[in-house]
Order: sequence, then C-alpha cells, then structure tokens
Amino acid sequence: MKRILTQVIPAALALALGVSLATARAEDPLPSWNDGKAKQSIIEFVAKVTKPGSPDFVPVPERIATFDNDGTLWCEQPMPVQLFFALDRVKALAPQHPEWKTKEPFASLLKGDLKTALAGGEHALLEIIMATHAGMTTAEFEQIVKDWLATAKHPKFKQPYNACVYQPMIELLAYLHANGFKNFIVSGGGIEFMRPWAEKAYGIPPEQVVGSSIKTKFEMRDGKPVLLRLPEINFIDDKAGKPVGINQHIGRRPVMAFGNSDGDREMLEYTQGGSGARFELLVLHDDAAREYAYGPALGLPDVKLGAFTPALYEQTKKDGWTVVSMKDDWKTIFAFENK
Amino acid sequence: MKRILTQVIPAALALALGVSLATARAEDPLPSWNDGKAKQSIIEFVAKVTKPGSPDFVPVPERIATFDNDGTLWCEQPMPVQLFFALDRVKALAPQHPEWKTKEPFASLLKGDLKTALAGGEHALLEIIMATHAGMTTAEFEQIVKDWLATAKHPKFKQPYNACVYQPMIELLAYLHANGFKNFIVSGGGIEFMRPWAEKAYGIPPEQVVGSSIKTKFEMRDGKPVLLRLPEINFIDDKAGKPVGINQHIGRRPVMAFGNSDGDREMLEYTQGGSGARFELLVLHDDAAREYAYGPALGLPDVKLGAFTPALYEQTKKDGWTVVSMKDDWKTIFAFENK
Repeated sequence: MKRILTQVIPAALALALGVSLATARAEDPLPSWNDGKAKQSIIEFVAKVTKPGSPDFVPVPERIATFDNDGTLWCEQPMPVQLFFALDRVKALAPQHPEWKTKEPFASLLKGDLKTALAGGEHALLEIIMATHAGMTTAEFEQIVKDWLATAKHPKFKQPYNACVYQPMIELLAYLHANGFKNFIVSGGGIEFMRPWAEKAYGIPPEQVVGSSIKTKFEMRDGKPVLLRLPEINFIDDKAGKPVGINQHIGRRPVMAFGNSDGDREMLEYTQGGSGARFELLVLHDDAAREYAYGPALGLPDVKLGAFTPALYEQTKKDGWTVVSMKDDWKTIFAFENK
Repeated sequence: MKRILTQVIPAALALALGVSLATARAEDPLPSWNDGKAKQSIIEFVAKVTKPGSPDFVPVPERIATFDNDGTLWCEQPMPVQLFFALDRVKALAPQHPEWKTKEPFASLLKGDLKTALAGGEHALLEIIMATHAGMTTAEFEQIVKDWLATAKHPKFKQPYNACVYQPMIELLAYLHANGFKNFIVSGGGIEFMRPWAEKAYGIPPEQVVGSSIKTKFEMRDGKPVLLRLPEINFIDDKAGKPVGINQHIGRRPVMAFGNSDGDREMLEYTQGGSGARFELLVLHDDAAREYAYGPALGLPDVKLGAFTPALYEQTKKDGWTVVSMKDDWKTIFAFENK
C-alpha cells in the first residue's frame, strides 16, 4: 500500500498543481543513464508532450507507453527466463511422466541435452510449453511461477531472475509514471508468467501486462469457480501480433514504445504511425562484460532468440528511432552491481 | 482534461489524506437511488472494504469492479444497440452490395422484415455482423461508430443511444472510482463498438473495456501501419467467456461485479469465488413505464436477448446477490427524464 501511494500520489499531486515531477525536483530522474543522445532524447520528448500549451502536448489519458520485456526490461540471455522455467518444470514433473524417459523432446531434456531437445524447433518448444504451462488452474500456475522465482538463479549472475532487471529501465518506468504515463508490458512471453512478479519488479499491475497466452476454460471444481489452463495456443504476442495485442488490450496507439529486437519492429512502426509526437527506442546489447553482446547488427554475435538484425538497425536510422548502447548509455545495468 | 482531473484528483487527494470521499463529503453519493436494501448494501460494502484496519479492507490496486454493459449500464431493449447499428450499416452499405437484394438475411432486412432476417438464428446474425463490422481498419470503424451514434436515436426514448445510460449506474461508477476502484466494462458486446463512446459516457477508458471481438491483422497500407478488421470471430465475451475475458485483460478477480442477465452469471460466480469480501449485483428490469419490464423471472415478460430467468433469480437468493428493482430502487433512470 505504502509503495503504491508513494508511486501514485506524487504524480497526482504534481498533476493537480499543474507541474510535472521532473521539473518540480532538481535531481536527475534517470541517474543510471549516462548523459548522451539517448537520455537527452527521452527527457526532451517527455518535456514537450507534458508541457501544457506545447504543440506536442498529449493529454494524460493518452499517455500510453509500451515495453517489450525480454531483453528490454530484463535479461534474456543465454535464453529467455521462461524457457529456464519450462526446463525446470520438466524436471520437477518427470516423476509423474515415466513415458518422458523415451519420448522427445523430454528424453533429451532430462539427460541435460538441450541442443537435441530443441532440435525439433517450434514443435518441440510447443510440446515443452504445453506440458509445463497447461493442465492446472490459473491460481495454481501463479503459485508455481512465484515458487520457482523464489529459488531459481540466473546462471551467469547468480541472482534471482527478477533481480536481473535493468536499473535504467526501472528508472525510466518510474519517470514516465511520474509524468502521467501508463506503462504497459507488451511481450512475446506468457502473460500469466509475467503477472505474478511484474508489479513488484516494475510497478506494472496485472491489467497492464499484455503477452502471449494459452486458452483457459471456466469451470466449477469442487463447487469453486476456477479457470483451467488448456494446452492450446490462444495468442502469440510477437512481431505483427504486438500491435494486435496492443489494440485488443489497450485500445489506443502508444505514444512511446520500447524494445530490443526484431520482434518489436511492428510495435514501433505502429506507434510511429500515430498522429502527433511519438517516440521509439531500441536497446542494443553491446556489453559483453557487464551483460551480453549480441546483434547480429554492427557485427555483434548472432543469437537464436532476441536478434537485433542489421536490417532493423538500418530502420532505426531511416525512421529516427533512438538506439541505446548498453555499454555507453547505461552507467549501471543491474541494481545488484552496486551492492 | 478537466473532466479527468475532477475525477482522478479528488480520489488521490482523499487517499493521501487517508479518508474516502464518501466520508469526506456529507452529500449523498448515489442521489438517483432510493433508500433501500440495494443502495444500503452497496454503501456498506464500499465502506468496509475501504476502511483501513477493517478485516475486509481491500488495497487500492485490488479494487476491481466489473460491469456488464447492455441492460446494466445502458438500455438493451427492444434490441441491443449494436444490432440497431448493424441494421443501419446494412442499409448504408446496400448500394455497394447489389447481391443483397436477393441474399438472406440481407434481402429481408432491407425490406424491413427483421423477423424473417433473424429467423436464421445465430448464423444470420453472424453474417450481418461480419458484413458490417469487418473489412475496414480499426480507426475507420471507430469513426463509423462515432458518426452513427451522433445521429441515431432510440426508438422509444427519441434520444441518442449514449443518452440512454442509467443515471444511477453513472453515479455508482463515479462513487466507486472516488473510492479507489478501477471500473471495467465486461460485455458480450463488441469491444471496438464500446470504446469510442465509453470514456465520455461512463468515465471508463478504452484499456478498461473488455468485450467480444473479431480478429485484426497488422499491415502496411500506403506506407501507413494499420490494423485491418477481419471477418473472423476472435472471442465471445459472454457467459463462461466473461471470467476468461476478465482474466485475460485484468488478471485479477473482481471484488465487485454488476450485471442484469443470465449472460452475467459466471462473472458473478467467479467474483464471489475469490477470497475476502466480494459483492455481486443484478439489475432487474421491472419498470415498463419508465423503461422496459422483462424477465421471465417473477412472471415478467420473456425476451430473446437479455433474459433474467427464474433460475438466476433463485441463485441470487441462494448466493446472497443483491437484486436491484429498477422500479423501486431507482429514483431516476435516465438523466434526460429530469430535463
């Protein structure tokens, strides 16, 4: 409650007084960002759209900002967190599934051979997701995610996954919120995988999380109304699916959009296509020392998931999208660095 | 902007001061409600869940209220407003569709024979919806809805449809909002049919509207990114679909839920199934003089769409749901009555 009040009230009071927090306080709203073009472009944009009487002024209800999650708000390497979760779930569920010992992709997974397991491509991945994400109620799944997050650790950073969130983006979320923006996650990840921890990690409530989903079914179980998670895809919130998900959940075109890979291209295009001032930003992972370095844009190493291609990089120049170099633009990447 | 501020700021200020508006001001927050059990049950519930230290206290972020639209927030007789819209669109589009002259259900519709047109049941209805709701961009559809609402009139009340909203429910929405609730529409009606006018009529922004939908597709049209509306059902937000839609969009179980018909049963069951204090209410249309009288509960006339069955009425008693008699509980039904 206290946390909510400290987030909501200053913004509301500032609004009531007709000033933005950013101008009301002298300190830097983005202390983990180095001074440079990226930081400057954000602050200048927010200033112009929140200044009453400005030709670029955007009324508070229309101040929608959308954020990709994997690779934009938290670390997505060496593979997306949800995939680590799925693999751990396969291990946890294996005793109930003796048939997995001889059935792919589970057999290879259980032997620790991830490469062979995922050689089946999308179909193998889907089998793993359905075996681990369906068959329970939504409330049960939420608890499973919370329990897993409480103990699982990132293999490189040896920190809980929800500590591997980018401190500069946490500051950006708070800065936008304080300036009347409503922040939404718009991620290819599972909507119900993100909601259990997104509010605490990002200050983003469940109703502002958009993601991929499987179908659910309402039923009475022992006289109690529950939603059962079914092994059937409902919606894939990636690439051209992102504008669709945004329209379905939000019903307004974002004013600002943030991503890091080719999966975010259409979200940024859709954002830019609106009338009036718009802002688009992509995070480039070019810091192998503090996080990971991957492209293949700018000759950085290629990756299977989360690629920032040379074509996307060309588009940022053509369309005037801001590119953040993690190496140059971020003073701190993770809060745990400073501990 | 002023309207948003007057709605948001008092609630935030009241929160900052640790008091609810209801207690801070002396006047009646629900002046169009007659004193009685229904009004009393609402006010008592809101008082107990908003009182800090109360065993029933609900933190602000969890204060979710969901409202059916047709028959709960606005008039749904003699048929749902969206169906009037669809029929008017068939007439407007007929010159572009010479084949409709001999093709059902369009041929009968264009002759004004609604009964024959709808004799084809769900299939006929679906054909009408797809012919009138798909094939344009989301932005084009929004404009079509706005243009139609600006001129169409309700056949009985001779008022614009968005003036045929229930004044007591408008007061209830504002009262809940002032007490920290986030109000959502959860309707069987089309999500994109409601969003263009819901914010002005109810103070409910697009991102808090849940409804039925058709699929959309992201594409570039003349270099501009648009969402094209496809003639394919995406989701039916009615009956057992309502809890599914609530979970998909909101990700929390409502604390309060409001409806008027059998289509709302599962939403109210789902709401009641949560832990802690919950509130469920159904509006009973028993005022033929000022609006319409229909059930068939309590021997009221039966209707094709929007029925409040005797079985549902029995359930309200068994489960302790509040039933509002429009005749007895509402002093005013429509704001235009007082003009």
